[in-house]
Amino acid sequence: MADALKIGIAGLGTVGASLVRIIQERAENLTVTCGRPIVITAVTARDRTRDRGIDLSAIKWFNSAEELAAKADIDVFVELMGGANGPADASVRAALKRGLHVVTANKALLASHGVELAALAEEKGALLNFEAAVAGGIPVIKALRESLTGNTVSRVYGIMNGTCNYILTKMEKEGLSFDACLKEAQRLGYAEADPAFDIEGNDTAHKLAILTTLAFGNRISADDIYLEGITNISIEDIRAAADLGYRIKLLGVAQRTETGIEQRVHPTMVPVESVIAQVDGVTNAVAIESDILGELLMVGPGAGGNATASAVLGDIADIAKSRPGAQRVPSLGRPAIKLEPYKRAQMRKHEGGYFIRMTVEDRAGVFAHIAGHMAENNISLESIVQRSATHLDTTEPKTIILVTHATMEASIRKAVEAIKGEGYLLGEPQVIRIERPRP
Amino acid sequence: MADALKIGIAGLGTVGASLVRIIQERAENLTVTCGRPIVITAVTARDRTRDRGIDLSAIKWFNSAEELAAKADIDVFVELMGGANGPADASVRAALKRGLHVVTANKALLASHGVELAALAEEKGALLNFEAAVAGGIPVIKALRESLTGNTVSRVYGIMNGTCNYILTKMEKEGLSFDACLKEAQRLGYAEADPAFDIEGNDTAHKLAILTTLAFGNRISADDIYLEGITNISIEDIRAAADLGYRIKLLGVAQRTETGIEQRVHPTMVPVESVIAQVDGVTNAVAIESDILGELLMVGPGAGGNATASAVLGDIADIAKSRPGAQRVPSLGRPAIKLEPYKRAQMRKHEGGYFIRMTVEDRAGVFAHIAGHMAENNISLESIVQRSATHLDTTEPKTIILVTHATMEASIRKAVEAIKGEGYLLGEPQVIRIERPRP
Repeated sequence: MADALKIGIAGLGTVGASLVRIIQERAENLTVTCGRPIVITAVTARDRTRDRGIDLSAIKWFNSAEELAAKADIDVFVELMGGANGPADASVRAALKRGLHVVTANKALLASHGVELAALAEEKGALLNFEAAVAGGIPVIKALRESLTGNTVSRVYGIMNGTCNYILTKMEKEGLSFDACLKEAQRLGYAEADPAFDIEGNDTAHKLAILTTLAFGNRISADDIYLEGITNISIEDIRAAADLGYRIKLLGVAQRTETGIEQRVHPTMVPVESVIAQVDGVTNAVAIESDILGELLMVGPGAGGNATASAVLGDIADIAKSRPGAQRVPSLGRPAIKLEPYKRAQMRKHEGGYFIRMTVEDRAGVFAHIAGHMAENNISLESIVQRSATHLDTTEPKTIILVTHATMEASIRKAVEAIKGEGYLLGEPQVIRIERPRP
Repeated sequence: MADALKIGIAGLGTVGASLVRIIQERAENLTVTCGRPIVITAVTARDRTRDRGIDLSAIKWFNSAEELAAKADIDVFVELMGGANGPADASVRAALKRGLHVVTANKALLASHGVELAALAEEKGALLNFEAAVAGGIPVIKALRESLTGNTVSRVYGIMNGTCNYILTKMEKEGLSFDACLKEAQRLGYAEADPAFDIEGNDTAHKLAILTTLAFGNRISADDIYLEGITNISIEDIRAAADLGYRIKLLGVAQRTETGIEQRVHPTMVPVESVIAQVDGVTNAVAIESDILGELLMVGPGAGGNATASAVLGDIADIAKSRPGAQRVPSLGRPAIKLEPYKRAQMRKHEGGYFIRMTVEDRAGVFAHIAGHMAENNISLESIVQRSATHLDTTEPKTIILVTHATMEASIRKAVEAIKGEGYLLGEPQVIRIERPRP
């Protein structure tokens, strides 16, 4: 029997407490599968007195994460505090500097400092594992970093925020407004009291930035992401999408293009018959398109104490099963010094289909005008729907919905600006991009 | 730079040729990601002269797989010949005995001898990797063996045979007969000239047996699988399933029950709104339900030279990235000597929903009789559909379709036998099990 793998955990929130319980309750099973015992020897958390329903009596308590990382008798430092900077960052650096392996679920930390931390880990011969940082329990980091070795990835996209997917699913299934569904999500604990970070797309953007690096081998660039949240999505959009054979999901998409790598987070229409369109509620999904393997889609729980703890435990087990000493698995798929600079593709050069919903005054010739502006910009239309609430009152506002074939974002923006200039639009037009799985 | 990892490949069919091309074309990229070059130094195949579109001039040719495994100057033996016994088995054993790592895509070999081979690998400190053996490019072995460490799996199920899924999808989408779709599958190269191994479910059974061991920690038991193929599925079944909100898929299912582990391969009705129901054509999908992570579903290409080669390459890369010497990742999820004996659950104690389609003579009281037999066996019905082709001729045969709530297989068998004894059935009743994703 090899020596026990000694673990120190910083942060005993939902995930940390789950992890302690699982490692303690399943000690025997873990010893068999990992070939050595996994033992928690050190912990730290903000509140020492709170009852977490776990037995910490045999575990050494440290006053801070930094102190634990610097001084505890451990092989692996597990960071479950969160936050891009402050104690999470300082303690992870301290641990890596000692040559300790690090496991973290902290997407903000990686999105901000991932490349530096990976370089430090590689310099010290340590592993930096972070499966739980993206899409919770879905092993997408392992798939990109290990299973897809040798593949050239063309696109990676996914539903990576359970809050948004819960709200969009509930709006569709129950015909409720965005606000009503957000309130319900908050009541159920699926959304924070201040939900902005989720519903504006920032959370998805952090995760996407990490996936982009693993998929395309560039340095992490979380600030260079085109970002649109879901607050603007109305029940009318969801209904119109359904009528046309689509569902609306908040997707993070990273894609190789001729001008660079696109990174974008926005509400997206996906064909209703696609597998990803069936991913409901808080469930996450990530699709990876590559040249040798083809398309791989993974669906699973994106959050929650247990699912996240499962991913953290998988990372710890990988360390337990590997030989001690210098490792060759590069945290970000290739050695940090070999990552390329990120070259951002111009969003106005994005090519894809678009859904455009406009409310217009019922004036003669409006429809022809709109069609004319589309034609002027060489935008070809897949479908056109014109609606009014009743057919009796011919002067009431009408809704016009256009779905375009693949076209360039710049053309769409130009056409929409021209239409806005005509003066017959009531309110802002709604523009939603369409994303299709590879045929 | 570490030493190159030297590879010997036995078998240069579609997968082997793809693998050689990929490793040669992407040498530079692989060196960066794996931290060392991967070099093919030895090959063997039945036909030495065939033009495979790859350059073998710098590679040493061996006359047999056994000779290559025993004598070549290699670190990793890659077995891509297939077959449970004969040269594949002999050469893999020879390689492991030398302490070489082995990568194989051979499900039949593993289903028959996997436990012995894993034990031999562990004794010698070698790795035995076989991601490509189950569900082609989908990294389900890695997910079960590594990502889910510490989880207790309750059920694993999936679409693991592209031929069957292609046929069933085509029957549904185009309303064609089983025979017509099989012919089309053969024309497109999705089915063999002798398709029995696929359409009778044996191929799925081999793969299931491997997944069962990784999921439940028992010894591989490929002969203890309840097996029904898809040859008996008619377009009427598919239409009736669709009317009731189901699709028919050939699933392999392994499930922990109170009496043991169920392993079964049979046509299965899945709810049309489930994610797995959307998996069309030759695509595969595997779902894993476990207690910490929850449900994980992976969808991807289950066959094809490139997708399979991608999985083989991932296995090779794992070896390249690990340190030489004794390894602790047990091939079957836990050390072979710690695998438990397989305890087969009794199929007649299987619990689930059932679809029963019967054609009956139009006699007075038949419907009441059938309902009576169901009630006698405590089978409660979710829905009952009675149909005749026209409503004008009241003496023509009628179709009765029952869908039951969860009930025991023994009760269904008893009820069906009793109904058969009544003499009003025309032909055999069709019984199809229903499988639901965990809610």
